Amino acid sequence: MRSLDALFNPGSIALVGAAHEEIKLGGTILRNLLSFRGKVYPINPKYRELMGIRAYPSVLDLPEPVDLMIIMRPGPEVPDILRHAAGRTKYAVVMSSGFAEIGETALQDEVKNIGRDSGIRILGPNCMGLYNPWQKLDTFFLPKKRLGRPKKGNVAIVSQSGAILSCLLGAVQQVRRGVSKAVGYGNAADIDESEIYEYLSEDRRTDVVVSYIESVGDGRRFVEKARALSEKKELIILKSGKGSSGQAAAFSHTGRLAGRYEVFHSIVRQTGIREAMDFDELMDAAKALSLQGTAQRSVQENPPSPPFVKGGMGEFEAASGQIGRRICIVTNGGGSGVLAADECMRQGLEVINLEDGARERLRQTFPHFYGINNPLDLTAQVKDRDYAVAMEELREDYDAFLLIALPNVLGITEGLAEAIRETFRRLQKPAVFYIGQGGISRRLTASLERMGIPVYPSPERAVRGLKALLK
Amino acid sequence: MRSLDALFNPGSIALVGAAHEEIKLGGTILRNLLSFRGKVYPINPKYRELMGIRAYPSVLDLPEPVDLMIIMRPGPEVPDILRHAAGRTKYAVVMSSGFAEIGETALQDEVKNIGRDSGIRILGPNCMGLYNPWQKLDTFFLPKKRLGRPKKGNVAIVSQSGAILSCLLGAVQQVRRGVSKAVGYGNAADIDESEIYEYLSEDRRTDVVVSYIESVGDGRRFVEKARALSEKKELIILKSGKGSSGQAAAFSHTGRLAGRYEVFHSIVRQTGIREAMDFDELMDAAKALSLQGTAQRSVQENPPSPPFVKGGMGEFEAASGQIGRRICIVTNGGGSGVLAADECMRQGLEVINLEDGARERLRQTFPHFYGINNPLDLTAQVKDRDYAVAMEELREDYDAFLLIALPNVLGITEGLAEAIRETFRRLQKPAVFYIGQGGISRRLTASLERMGIPVYPSPERAVRGLKALLK
Repeated sequence: MRSLDALFNPGSIALVGAAHEEIKLGGTILRNLLSFRGKVYPINPKYRELMGIRAYPSVLDLPEPVDLMIIMRPGPEVPDILRHAAGRTKYAVVMSSGFAEIGETALQDEVKNIGRDSGIRILGPNCMGLYNPWQKLDTFFLPKKRLGRPKKGNVAIVSQSGAILSCLLGAVQQVRRGVSKAVGYGNAADIDESEIYEYLSEDRRTDVVVSYIESVGDGRRFVEKARALSEKKELIILKSGKGSSGQAAAFSHTGRLAGRYEVFHSIVRQTGIREAMDFDELMDAAKALSLQGTAQRSVQENPPSPPFVKGGMGEFEAASGQIGRRICIVTNGGGSGVLAADECMRQGLEVINLEDGARERLRQTFPHFYGINNPLDLTAQVKDRDYAVAMEELREDYDAFLLIALPNVLGITEGLAEAIRETFRRLQKPAVFYIGQGGISRRLTASLERMGIPVYPSPERAVRGLKALLK
Repeated sequence: MRSLDALFNPGSIALVGAAHEEIKLGGTILRNLLSFRGKVYPINPKYRELMGIRAYPSVLDLPEPVDLMIIMRPGPEVPDILRHAAGRTKYAVVMSSGFAEIGETALQDEVKNIGRDSGIRILGPNCMGLYNPWQKLDTFFLPKKRLGRPKKGNVAIVSQSGAILSCLLGAVQQVRRGVSKAVGYGNAADIDESEIYEYLSEDRRTDVVVSYIESVGDGRRFVEKARALSEKKELIILKSGKGSSGQAAAFSHTGRLAGRYEVFHSIVRQTGIREAMDFDELMDAAKALSLQGTAQRSVQENPPSPPFVKGGMGEFEAASGQIGRRICIVTNGGGSGVLAADECMRQGLEVINLEDGARERLRQTFPHFYGINNPLDLTAQVKDRDYAVAMEELREDYDAFLLIALPNVLGITEGLAEAIRETFRRLQKPAVFYIGQGGISRRLTASLERMGIPVYPSPERAVRGLKALLK
């Protein structure tokens, strides 16, 4: 089996089903291919030219073999197109729907067999296709004005669903980060998540992999490839099709059986692969890993010194078992701090109380009515600089910081981002914010995210975002 | 025990700790009281006038008794202020912190005893206070420019935490709805959630009650009052302080024990009171109930006819037990539909498949590549009008609609809201949207919410928002 390199980095592309206007999907794809660096061959028997490029009546008329053929024609036409493509392309991306997902299993099997017999490797059918900004490769059927494309970066997105792929592209873009590759692989008749994981584990442009899957073909191979990938890169997976309704829906969506989720969950858990439990968790993790995923990797390679261990075996065990998971919550709203502490417990993160020394130092520093605990409650009389002071004082005792700022009080200003910049940079510890909605919230969020601190709209989501940064 | 009517609808107010500038909390409160319809008496020994109103040196100098006294002075001063207030006010709102929440239990007990002996009923200490737009009453210490105030409406907010209260005010405002009353009751030394629930169950302005609590004083009384309230109004409660860290945090926040959450959860479940499991669920339910809470009540009073029951006892039981919980998912993104179906299962909602007749009708109506199932997959080639067509065709078979529109495709436009308006109005069934982020998303969301359809930013949150509309 050859590497997928020519799929993600083709030199030339043919588009079967190219159209002249963007209202048609084949027109949008052609428009998006116009910026591709290599050669593009539109195929459409009705036109001699499309969007200023010479068009060809059929696959048989291609002047030379291509690396990649994109097929956007109704399902029943696809087998013949593929037969004609034999020897004329290495890869085919079958974007058309109308295969196993609507019960047309025989049609999909036919496509699969033609691929196997002709040596054409197939992505799809019923898929979103490829995006690789490093090569200006963009095969999506969605116009740029509706789906913004992230710039070049180090995050790879691997999604069985085009809808979820689109949302993940948005999440990466929202925090001004970029992608290395994005692929929607649909029904996975041939190329599947495992093969893509294998490819990405060797891809030097990729540091973080965010993946949405509905079904797994070969479970053993999946576990092997996912584990290998997670050892080399930051990997997070959301698996859907969890209950019977979801499984039925997954089958109707991509025509593959979702399998028993409990089995998947237990294997993923054992192998230490990060799993998101729902859409929001996947988006939130994508954001956290886009911003701090690589920094975190370097932190892990230089683990922090063990925590100060107080007497007693129970405390020793608790402390030594939890290195890397001790969370300090700093808040200006008590209720939000309570909710964050609750979620930390649910997520297996430790909200250990302050050391006596730290407590004393903070009592000296802060007004008497601040709640000197963990969560540290800065109350409604908070000042921007309090967050940095708290982080500095507690940096030795905690592995990560969950910061909560409700900007309804006058003491929280847009200067908060600047007030913690230097501390955040120097501490090199994972940190996320929950910022309450309204008022200066949007601008403050933008400033923090520009500095590399992900911001979430609820206490619990902030906790789960932070968790994605801890292994 | 007298009703809380004069607390929520006072005729006159004294503010102890009034200040002349908004940078001080006592200045912000006075500013907010300027629009109050009744008499306001600022109390501050240093000024003869504050913000254009005559000020008084002390409580003892008040020219007449008031209904409500707001106290914003350091904790240790509060007992003397209350002693002087005996006979001079019916209610005191002690906003100051520095009581049981930081270990000053004796101080709080002293305050409580003075209240009991003098007949002054106390809200707080350590609380956010009151907002009643029907009386232009606003005792919050947060400026309007930082915390917008919702207009008059039918949603009551009862929150132990001021931070969560602020967020809930934002949620109601975001969907252009209004509140009947909002109260942050803090440490609950005297007036607690149970007494407020009792008052609201008789309040004709209130149809929906959204409540955040950290601790419950008298469990038996709480259950009695919460149940009585939920029989008369739409009630949803979030209880925090669930794990040991959260319980410790709750204690540090309001100085009351959170109690064993499992006990709370099991009782609430048995009595059929709606419970939100985290902050997002509470906000999402607040939004759904603000928009469709009252409509839903009238739907419940005229329950839909039982579903068509196919043969077999198992199916009969499943169907008859699930009246009111049959969800139809209509999506233009397969993966989002799968995630929604998964969440419906987790939430105990039924995603039953299409009846044969409906399936046949939809096959006639829609293109062959649409996925005619539940979820109904309108694919990337969706048109706005498809949603209304689907709802009309399936209106007899389902109790509620979960609609998903990913606006990355050209077939979804801002006209979608208009395209379903008439159907939504006529069907009178709960309906919510998940709209994907980006592009026209914001304007489309605003149009839908103006029509009374709540919009959520993820499939799972849409499911949980919809669930809040079903009992």
